[in-house]
Amino acid sequence: MLVAGIDVGGTKCLALAVDGEGSVLGEVRVPTPPSDGLVGTLGGLVAELESSLGRSMAGVGVGAPGLVDQHGVLRAAPNVPGTVELAVGPRLASLTERPVQVDNDATCATEAEWRLGAARGATDAVMVTLGTGIGAGLVCGGQLQRGRHGFAGEVGHMVVDPDGPRCPCGRRGCWERYASGSGLRRLAREAAEAGQLAHVVAQAGGDPDGVMGEQVVAAAREGDAEALDVIERFAWWVGLGLVNLTNVLDPEVLVIGGGLARAGDVVLEPVRRAFAELLYAPGHRTHPRIVLATLGERAGALGAALLAGEMLALRASLGQEAPSAPWAPPAAGGEVGK
Amino acid sequence: MLVAGIDVGGTKCLALAVDGEGSVLGEVRVPTPPSDGLVGTLGGLVAELESSLGRSMAGVGVGAPGLVDQHGVLRAAPNVPGTVELAVGPRLASLTERPVQVDNDATCATEAEWRLGAARGATDAVMVTLGTGIGAGLVCGGQLQRGRHGFAGEVGHMVVDPDGPRCPCGRRGCWERYASGSGLRRLAREAAEAGQLAHVVAQAGGDPDGVMGEQVVAAAREGDAEALDVIERFAWWVGLGLVNLTNVLDPEVLVIGGGLARAGDVVLEPVRRAFAELLYAPGHRTHPRIVLATLGERAGALGAALLAGEMLALRASLGQEAPSAPWAPPAAGGEVGK
Repeated sequence: MLVAGIDVGGTKCLALAVDGEGSVLGEVRVPTPPSDGLVGTLGGLVAELESSLGRSMAGVGVGAPGLVDQHGVLRAAPNVPGTVELAVGPRLASLTERPVQVDNDATCATEAEWRLGAARGATDAVMVTLGTGIGAGLVCGGQLQRGRHGFAGEVGHMVVDPDGPRCPCGRRGCWERYASGSGLRRLAREAAEAGQLAHVVAQAGGDPDGVMGEQVVAAAREGDAEALDVIERFAWWVGLGLVNLTNVLDPEVLVIGGGLARAGDVVLEPVRRAFAELLYAPGHRTHPRIVLATLGERAGALGAALLAGEMLALRASLGQEAPSAPWAPPAAGGEVGK
Repeated sequence: MLVAGIDVGGTKCLALAVDGEGSVLGEVRVPTPPSDGLVGTLGGLVAELESSLGRSMAGVGVGAPGLVDQHGVLRAAPNVPGTVELAVGPRLASLTERPVQVDNDATCATEAEWRLGAARGATDAVMVTLGTGIGAGLVCGGQLQRGRHGFAGEVGHMVVDPDGPRCPCGRRGCWERYASGSGLRRLAREAAEAGQLAHVVAQAGGDPDGVMGEQVVAAAREGDAEALDVIERFAWWVGLGLVNLTNVLDPEVLVIGGGLARAGDVVLEPVRRAFAELLYAPGHRTHPRIVLATLGERAGALGAALLAGEMLALRASLGQEAPSAPWAPPAAGGEVGK
């Protein structure tokens, strides 16, 4: 049995055909269309996977970048302009005539890293995706958690500094203002405006306001002291948010994914140092491991497929539209309670 | 079958004898002894319950104010001086020759409010106990959560203002510095030192530094505008932390317990207003209810007894030292997944 998993990103949609072992048999990607064309595009991706493989998809999983409720409605999606109260799940199910499961994209990535990647075997894990913004997924007590209404994991909007910079969400000092890609860029531009990062500013055409996070990461890699200083400050804020999540949830592993995971070689150690400095009662507890995600940019689509498979298995167990073959999700979740 | 539930507080220990319906049949309290006498005192409370009722306790649950690990060791307890790495569970089990379950006190209170009180029937709930410090308990996906090592719920040490006042834990701007009883007192003293709260300062003998939170609450109740202003600021910080927890966990109900719940008549509405102002994407989601705890000062001991009962039931199901009669915990947890 195959299921389709689709990750809806700010710029592209990635669709995978996945079997019951979690293996990827097909892959298609297209640019993310405007909101009113989204459901049609997703349906087209399923059709394209089916025709290229000559096999039918038993169900479809979708990871969407925003607040997804328990009915598969994308309530709000800041990075897909115009997307408000879009009934992705019901409409895609109707279009494809297949069962559809829609979740937040970071929830999907967490499912994949938990079952097949960096958090495999953990009963309690938190994954944060550090990209333009910050997403997160939670595994608590051996279960992937979505919260009561589907909105768990909006950790980017934890307020960590009420006098901090204004967030597009309307509040001040959200964690996302510091520990995301845009946070790194803001810290870098502040340093550039203060006369630092001369080498990086030159690369940006001499305009401090044009400095990008990637350039700071590259300069830090080459040992530029001022760039390393910016990375240190950035990592401190990442560590602070991970500490807050650990004080709340006490996971055994914290997984860092998203675009910034590619800067792990310069960011990870400073994050670990900040975490150890900020954690409550550090001498009286086991610290969680802080690791990088291992599944890369496919994690979201893969997790969406795994969650669609679980949805099909649940429906089958309830006697609803049994899929043609039993679906057995990969084993990590089964190690719960060890 | 009866179990004993004991809540270890900073000043007193409260012990209850509880039956399988969650009814309280006996109650004893004693002052909390120094750390080296704690286990002996707890054993004495169990013996006293047994002799007063003429019945044996099948097991003992303890709620302790600090970091309790999964082996029943109290790793650190800031409010019970000298308590570090105290093996409460193993030592009390050896002393009483009964199965013992030790949890964090706020975890115990949450269990009680979830099964019998304000969070009854919820699949996802957070309880915060606002006292001298802040504790919390989490119910996620229909399970009480303790985290991987037993330390979930240390929400008082979420950093919400890195430039804020120093916390005894060593960091700055922990939520506890604002939203606890000591936080209220600090906000009140700041107002008094700025020349406000004249009526309250007079009550405190004219010394702004002697102003207590209770006096501000009382003045607010009488309509004192400056006292109401302090309460408003306090409530804003309570709301901010509850928003952070909701952005992470998306519960359906937030329960406020601890000593400050007694100020609910003046605090609850301003907390709800601050929460609605600070929540991420408030127009696109169902907001959790924010309610007061209903079980009062017995919640911790009652929850400790319920958790001991669950431990006995689990041991019985595994064929280990079956208790004399089957233990059926009250039903709320059974409503999971509705």
